[in-house]
Amino acid sequence: MSAVETRPSPITATVDFTADGVQHGHLRLPYSRDDSAWGSVIIPLTVVKNGEGPTALLTGGNHGDEYEGPIALFDLARSLKQHDISGRVIIVPAMNYPAFSAGTRTSPIDKGNLNRSFPGAPDGTVTQKIADYFQRVLLPIADVVLDFHSGGKTLDFLPFCAAHLVHNKVQEARSFDLVKAFGAPWSVKMLEIDAVGMYDTAAEEMGKVFITTELGGGGTATALSASIAKRGVRNVLLAAGILKSGTVEVRDTKWLDMSDSTCFHFASEAGLVEPLVDLGASVRRGETIASIFPIGQTGVPPAEVRAQQDGILIARHFPSIVKPGDCIAVLAFEL
Amino acid sequence: MSAVETRPSPITATVDFTADGVQHGHLRLPYSRDDSAWGSVIIPLTVVKNGEGPTALLTGGNHGDEYEGPIALFDLARSLKQHDISGRVIIVPAMNYPAFSAGTRTSPIDKGNLNRSFPGAPDGTVTQKIADYFQRVLLPIADVVLDFHSGGKTLDFLPFCAAHLVHNKVQEARSFDLVKAFGAPWSVKMLEIDAVGMYDTAAEEMGKVFITTELGGGGTATALSASIAKRGVRNVLLAAGILKSGTVEVRDTKWLDMSDSTCFHFASEAGLVEPLVDLGASVRRGETIASIFPIGQTGVPPAEVRAQQDGILIARHFPSIVKPGDCIAVLAFEL
Amino acid sequence: MSAVETRPSPITATVDFTADGVQHGHLRLPYSRDDSAWGSVIIPLTVVKNGEGPTALLTGGNHGDEYEGPIALFDLARSLKQHDISGRVIIVPAMNYPAFSAGTRTSPIDKGNLNRSFPGAPDGTVTQKIADYFQRVLLPIADVVLDFHSGGKTLDFLPFCAAHLVHNKVQEARSFDLVKAFGAPWSVKMLEIDAVGMYDTAAEEMGKVFITTELGGGGTATALSASIAKRGVRNVLLAAGILKSGTVEVRDTKWLDMSDSTCFHFASEAGLVEPLVDLGASVRRGETIASIFPIGQTGVPPAEVRAQQDGILIARHFPSIVKPGDCIAVLAFEL
Amino acid sequence: MSAVETRPSPITATVDFTADGVQHGHLRLPYSRDDSAWGSVIIPLTVVKNGEGPTALLTGGNHGDEYEGPIALFDLARSLKQHDISGRVIIVPAMNYPAFSAGTRTSPIDKGNLNRSFPGAPDGTVTQKIADYFQRVLLPIADVVLDFHSGGKTLDFLPFCAAHLVHNKVQEARSFDLVKAFGAPWSVKMLEIDAVGMYDTAAEEMGKVFITTELGGGGTATALSASIAKRGVRNVLLAAGILKSGTVEVRDTKWLDMSDSTCFHFASEAGLVEPLVDLGASVRRGETIASIFPIGQTGVPPAEVRAQQDGILIARHFPSIVKPGDCIAVLAFEL
Amino acid sequence: MSAVETRPSPITATVDFTADGVQHGHLRLPYSRDDSAWGSVIIPLTVVKNGEGPTALLTGGNHGDEYEGPIALFDLARSLKQHDISGRVIIVPAMNYPAFSAGTRTSPIDKGNLNRSFPGAPDGTVTQKIADYFQRVLLPIADVVLDFHSGGKTLDFLPFCAAHLVHNKVQEARSFDLVKAFGAPWSVKMLEIDAVGMYDTAAEEMGKVFITTELGGGGTATALSASIAKRGVRNVLLAAGILKSGTVEVRDTKWLDMSDSTCFHFASEAGLVEPLVDLGASVRRGETIASIFPIGQTGVPPAEVRAQQDGILIARHFPSIVKPGDCIAVLAFEL
Amino acid sequence: MSAVETRPSPITATVDFTADGVQHGHLRLPYSRDDSAWGSVIIPLTVVKNGEGPTALLTGGNHGDEYEGPIALFDLARSLKQHDISGRVIIVPAMNYPAFSAGTRTSPIDKGNLNRSFPGAPDGTVTQKIADYFQRVLLPIADVVLDFHSGGKTLDFLPFCAAHLVHNKVQEARSFDLVKAFGAPWSVKMLEIDAVGMYDTAAEEMGKVFITTELGGGGTATALSASIAKRGVRNVLLAAGILKSGTVEVRDTKWLDMSDSTCFHFASEAGLVEPLVDLGASVRRGETIASIFPIGQTGVPPAEVRAQQDGILIARHFPSIVKPGDCIAVLAFEL
Repeated sequence: MSAVETRPSPITATVDFTADGVQHGHLRLPYSRDDSAWGSVIIPLTVVKNGEGPTALLTGGNHGDEYEGPIALFDLARSLKQHDISGRVIIVPAMNYPAFSAGTRTSPIDKGNLNRSFPGAPDGTVTQKIADYFQRVLLPIADVVLDFHSGGKTLDFLPFCAAHLVHNKVQEARSFDLVKAFGAPWSVKMLEIDAVGMYDTAAEEMGKVFITTELGGGGTATALSASIAKRGVRNVLLAAGILKSGTVEVRDTKWLDMSDSTCFHFASEAGLVEPLVDLGASVRRGETIASIFPIGQTGVPPAEVRAQQDGILIARHFPSIVKPGDCIAVLAFEL
Repeated sequence: MSAVETRPSPITATVDFTADGVQHGHLRLPYSRDDSAWGSVIIPLTVVKNGEGPTALLTGGNHGDEYEGPIALFDLARSLKQHDISGRVIIVPAMNYPAFSAGTRTSPIDKGNLNRSFPGAPDGTVTQKIADYFQRVLLPIADVVLDFHSGGKTLDFLPFCAAHLVHNKVQEARSFDLVKAFGAPWSVKMLEIDAVGMYDTAAEEMGKVFITTELGGGGTATALSASIAKRGVRNVLLAAGILKSGTVEVRDTKWLDMSDSTCFHFASEAGLVEPLVDLGASVRRGETIASIFPIGQTGVPPAEVRAQQDGILIARHFPSIVKPGDCIAVLAFEL
Repeated sequence: MSAVETRPSPITATVDFTADGVQHGHLRLPYSRDDSAWGSVIIPLTVVKNGEGPTALLTGGNHGDEYEGPIALFDLARSLKQHDISGRVIIVPAMNYPAFSAGTRTSPIDKGNLNRSFPGAPDGTVTQKIADYFQRVLLPIADVVLDFHSGGKTLDFLPFCAAHLVHNKVQEARSFDLVKAFGAPWSVKMLEIDAVGMYDTAAEEMGKVFITTELGGGGTATALSASIAKRGVRNVLLAAGILKSGTVEVRDTKWLDMSDSTCFHFASEAGLVEPLVDLGASVRRGETIASIFPIGQTGVPPAEVRAQQDGILIARHFPSIVKPGDCIAVLAFEL
Repeated sequence: MSAVETRPSPITATVDFTADGVQHGHLRLPYSRDDSAWGSVIIPLTVVKNGEGPTALLTGGNHGDEYEGPIALFDLARSLKQHDISGRVIIVPAMNYPAFSAGTRTSPIDKGNLNRSFPGAPDGTVTQKIADYFQRVLLPIADVVLDFHSGGKTLDFLPFCAAHLVHNKVQEARSFDLVKAFGAPWSVKMLEIDAVGMYDTAAEEMGKVFITTELGGGGTATALSASIAKRGVRNVLLAAGILKSGTVEVRDTKWLDMSDSTCFHFASEAGLVEPLVDLGASVRRGETIASIFPIGQTGVPPAEVRAQQDGILIARHFPSIVKPGDCIAVLAFEL
Repeated sequence: MSAVETRPSPITATVDFTADGVQHGHLRLPYSRDDSAWGSVIIPLTVVKNGEGPTALLTGGNHGDEYEGPIALFDLARSLKQHDISGRVIIVPAMNYPAFSAGTRTSPIDKGNLNRSFPGAPDGTVTQKIADYFQRVLLPIADVVLDFHSGGKTLDFLPFCAAHLVHNKVQEARSFDLVKAFGAPWSVKMLEIDAVGMYDTAAEEMGKVFITTELGGGGTATALSASIAKRGVRNVLLAAGILKSGTVEVRDTKWLDMSDSTCFHFASEAGLVEPLVDLGASVRRGETIASIFPIGQTGVPPAEVRAQQDGILIARHFPSIVKPGDCIAVLAFEL
Repeated sequence: MSAVETRPSPITATVDFTADGVQHGHLRLPYSRDDSAWGSVIIPLTVVKNGEGPTALLTGGNHGDEYEGPIALFDLARSLKQHDISGRVIIVPAMNYPAFSAGTRTSPIDKGNLNRSFPGAPDGTVTQKIADYFQRVLLPIADVVLDFHSGGKTLDFLPFCAAHLVHNKVQEARSFDLVKAFGAPWSVKMLEIDAVGMYDTAAEEMGKVFITTELGGGGTATALSASIAKRGVRNVLLAAGILKSGTVEVRDTKWLDMSDSTCFHFASEAGLVEPLVDLGASVRRGETIASIFPIGQTGVPPAEVRAQQDGILIARHFPSIVKPGDCIAVLAFEL
């Protein structure tokens, strides 16, 4: 066992993960800085435990500007009762709390993208310390992991729940069962090409049943998108055998596949985007998805972003002003 | 005549507003600064003129993070031909170009909100100089003014076209005729309580026919919202007798009224907003429109924003994290 | 009456200043900005009223980094009951709330020093709008005004209460009676040389009884300095005949005079300050009050700040690193 | 020997540590950056050497906003003469000079906390390069190390000198002898729980006699606290047998112990702190040490920070506005 | 006399302008701010006076990033002796000292361009207070004014001395006599089109003999350009009859005229500038002066900046990356 | 082979390095950030290939504020035709494109100095990813490497081309042949003392023929300096046998040597620099090269920077305001 592994996390929890009942508390991460020599980062969490049974780890705010998950989880945390469940539910509505409280994808402290920081380090940056705590303390005690994402301030998605194709097909099948239970309007089978540093990968490599979502974007939530998240998390807890009463509220879902790099369409020019199709629309190869007007002069024809293949528009760039290299559109394929 | 009135604007145009034809050019505003002692602010514009006839002044980017107008106007500027029209069309897709190119409501140079800077000043800030140029050069030569707005990065609106109730009822009637011609899904009769400094007021006080819009928000445009803007501007040019061929593409519209200060609902707490109704929904007085969760701890009930009267949700705060005093929701009343 | 006078303040209060009872509410100042198009600045306040009687206006946070006043006023606001008083008490613990919440002397919004912004303007900056509201709404309904100051992050003071020498000697006498009642360890008779823009001046020119304090500094409060503020405000309310039960808790105080510009000692060099006497000490003309070491090299003798006359050290620069022109020390004279 | 160990430090000294006499010079650390491609960081230092004898390494400015040490050391550097001593005194008044000249705890260049950066690295950040130079050049030639600390801008301490409990009891006893000689009003026996990266640990692991201080705080020094530092360093040089004439100026000191994590009291809420006891006061378990008022509204009771055990208030948060997780108070126990 | 005129400047001088001898001192401008509540801006100056005679006011650092003037004036200030002169020399090497010490054209405090801030205001911004002091205190006591400029960080000029064409032809002739005496390689007759707010105009309107320079640029000085400034100022003092011994060191100069707005060539595109001619070169109308490459892609022909008329390249943009509206080149005409 | 070596670069090229013809494209480096979750850094490049033959890798913008290289390479990229050459030319005008587009030496994203970042890392910072791509993709396919440098915004150089003394004398001789062919006015034989992390070292260790330049500085280019770069790159391609027609345009060059650390002269004081000699001048040991005036006061003699040996001034600090430790001057020796 290496030195790094044996060094304890500097994070302490004010809750006892082994005690029955409902506990609202926080993780305290010492963070010495110019404006507070002995200050801390505080991450709120709730633990509900009732006897034996599986543990669900429910997380939002992995990226700090994605809101359907935090809404569903702050709501669940204040309403879930001990005797509603068998087993344990650990709710962390805002994993990367510094990013969440700043309303940014990454941490304002260290610019850390938490979902690229696993397995983390106990003596690293603040973001790496958070990753390390999930890696070594919370993921090991979980059976089922649901990590909420949305598009954030710069992307917008069709609302979907997803899991990854993994080597262990039993693990994979259980994950897709939960995706189906979640009941988002769309469901996606994902194959990550570069999964290094992801929370997903950390969980899957430990053999956990892991599902995730993209439920909208733009740095906001709607009544509709929030309701998908709230219904989804209860469905998942029911399907996992943790929530005792009620039944999974089944919804139709369409299954999609994001197969390869030709799904992604990048801007080659800076400018003002005029979208020509909206999320959910079907496009044909060669069709113009968006125009990009140069903004410094009038009378110039816009650049055109054309579909590289047939597909459904599953994601798009959100802000209307773009830079070269921004991802403008993503297509997926109905299964 | 006062000293201020006689001092000429420092802005020069590279186009001749009196010449027939299509001219693409810019306004050049000298702007000396640390990183360019003899630098300028450049504002692109297009003038299309064909003989005699009324002048339409079409503007977007009054607030820099509102995009349906700029999209429609960059598109119109590159496609409108001299012989399509009788009279003159002046197109300024991004009035407050420094704000527009930064993607912000106000100017990054001086934090100026152009729509609160009228009548402006030739020796004031950059934003005041822009206002002064419109006040003394462009508005006086216009007959019809269409100024595009949307919600920007922090608000989201039902798509509507609007005009103000003004003293001159002939002027008012002609304005509402154009609102109807614009053909947005919703149309609004507005009574500004504090109209000081607005471009609207400057135009109306000169007796111009003036209409405006709110066509979405969040700092983006969709294919749908952009198409409303593009159709609307052509309808207006047709109705104004400038665009020669084609007919107004009539659409159903619902008329709304934003009557008094009880329409506006403000947050009294900081936190994470869960919207409970979406734009366009009808609510009853006392109904909860949104919940606001404190983000620093779990297990706490959210504050509730309740409808102060019956109405339709016409606007809402866009980012999910709010501060006390932010406007969370606006209700309007169907006429 | 000029246009400016007739334009109403944009600030609205959620309390009714004419109603009996205890009301906790806030002032709402519309503040449109890039991150909240329809946002506001919120200033908390409490009004306690019981029948007829004089009105005391109690304010802290005129400068945002001075804390004894806000502590005493937040404490008073939550504990004062309707029937404790005859008349009215208006408590604004943090006048320049944007500065107070940022922990800075001036407003982070517009760099406004509220105490140099009177009489303010309803269409000016945020700080000017706050000044205007006090000038035209709150000061006119007050009889007695107590405005708390301390040294803030960059100065430290002996704890004193003070009033100004004014033309109206009845007004002046009543003010010094309240200074005496306040009961700080030190009391000061002040003659402002440049009183333009001050809240003090605004109040005094309306004939109000006005007292102020300096109760410490450095951007903190101690148990001792906070207790001086808490006792002082109750003593003043008793002496003003508003607080009904209890008696003024009399304390010894030493009276000081800050007569002329030779009281002020400025650094002529940048460097690290070594104080050679502490607050309250007596110094003789020519005595070294502080040394200033240049920090870029060792082995160099420090510059010396010498007393320009005999006196008591009543104030000093707080941070140890200074720039040329910083006020290093202020002497006063015992009366 | 690893590659890192053999790579020389990029820092060069303008003094010769082996030469007798008084030398004032600096360490030059090449620092290429946008505003000076071939620029440097300069750290002033003084070396006084007279024949054979022990070497004392005297340091301040390890944290850049702590001033008693730098004052005492700039003063000592300009006054110490060759023939005052036997042996060698190396004086570095501002170890982390970039932080010191900015008046911040950590370096403005890389946000490095020097006292968590040991052993450093010759090819790391600027702060790591400084640590590496002390680790590999200065500490190895020292016998006695005195590192001055104070509370900095965000903490305030009772004035004390301290040493650590270490495995080598001879080393420990010699260190506590110097603590006693220093003669601060309070003396502390410390057991670091997490000593990784500290200068203290680096020195102690080399077997050096190491003492440190906390002599006040808030980002300032007083005449009193500076005099404690100045007397202390001379006492230590006398006790170490380096300063030849004079005798240790003995002062009473009270011995304290900071035993465990219950000494530390953290804020669970943001707000305005009202301290209820001052430094040096004795408190009983359960007693309220401080109140924390929420600042956004009046009329709300403050949160209370209660003593977790009996003790003496040895440290407190300095700025009056706090965030959740800030250390509000530290208790110690008289031995 | 208006209220503004009678309000005294807040600036105090540590020198006595009426006393014979050499005095080195400073102007102190009180500047209250977050990091120094009772801080100041300090502007160094030297006054040399010897009996009766004319007064020369010599200024540099009107723009903070122009260095030939400050070099010549710091040098003159330390070397000029009382008995070298008859009359008085007032030397202010860095008028806008906040800008000068920051190395920026405008003040970092308020973004004030001092040379557009006249006549200033005693209760305005820091820059306006400086302008007011020159307007009401220093200019009135001067007979001859020499204000040094160079191109600063963003422009580069042929080295020239200049005066304006003014209504009073006696005043004009005396000014051009001093331009000739200055002896720069080039001399320019200027007609300001928009002279509002300039120090030049303020001086000229008081009837002062006023000359100025442009002596290079780019934010640096060379040994050559500094020597032109040093020789020029001595020549001017000799020609003005103030410096008693020595003779004007006559140099050949070429006279130029900057007649109209076609002299100025602006970039219409952003990009990387390739200059095709250097300062001092003659160009023919239509000749390409510079190319501007777009930087985001290769293989694209650059935009071309063509001479609008025949002339000599007298000034050019300095940094190689430009924005639309930047002045790329200025042509002048040999007389 | 380690994990790091086998992990592919995240950078993709839009060009095919093995295809004949002229291709203009870019490198795309995925860069997820707050303002574009799926954004990229784009680096433009051109590949010209014609059959078999050597490959020249031509680079500019290694430091982002050095312009002669980018000008010559953008010009070459748009003009070089397939049939002009035998072999292949890879042109990257702006290696560190984020730095280049910001006009800064280092990357605004991560403050990375690309020329100290080799060999880079595929999972490091953006700058490290760029280094890694050159290390593992571009350098291995090159035979001849020409990397353009100039002094940037803070240094100014005599225009020279240079190569390093390396162990392989064949490689060294071929490099100096190309230096001679380049034909700059000056040519330099360099011995890097600390070559760790340099692109030069990476290329040389692979056995590549490597030459570099310093062609001016100050953050600009002149017509003269740009022409040296344009002629030089064509001469090098001719001498390398890649450019088919034309002959090397031979120019006289003077050979210089920068032998040891005494060449470098650093400021010991902050202040305003008066240069006393210009680039190319010969100085004698002890001669004053520059004076440094303290700026906070007049009447003080300047510090002097004296030549540490005889030599030619080959480089100097560019901005006139300096800090202690800035390199003021560099001398070289004629061979």
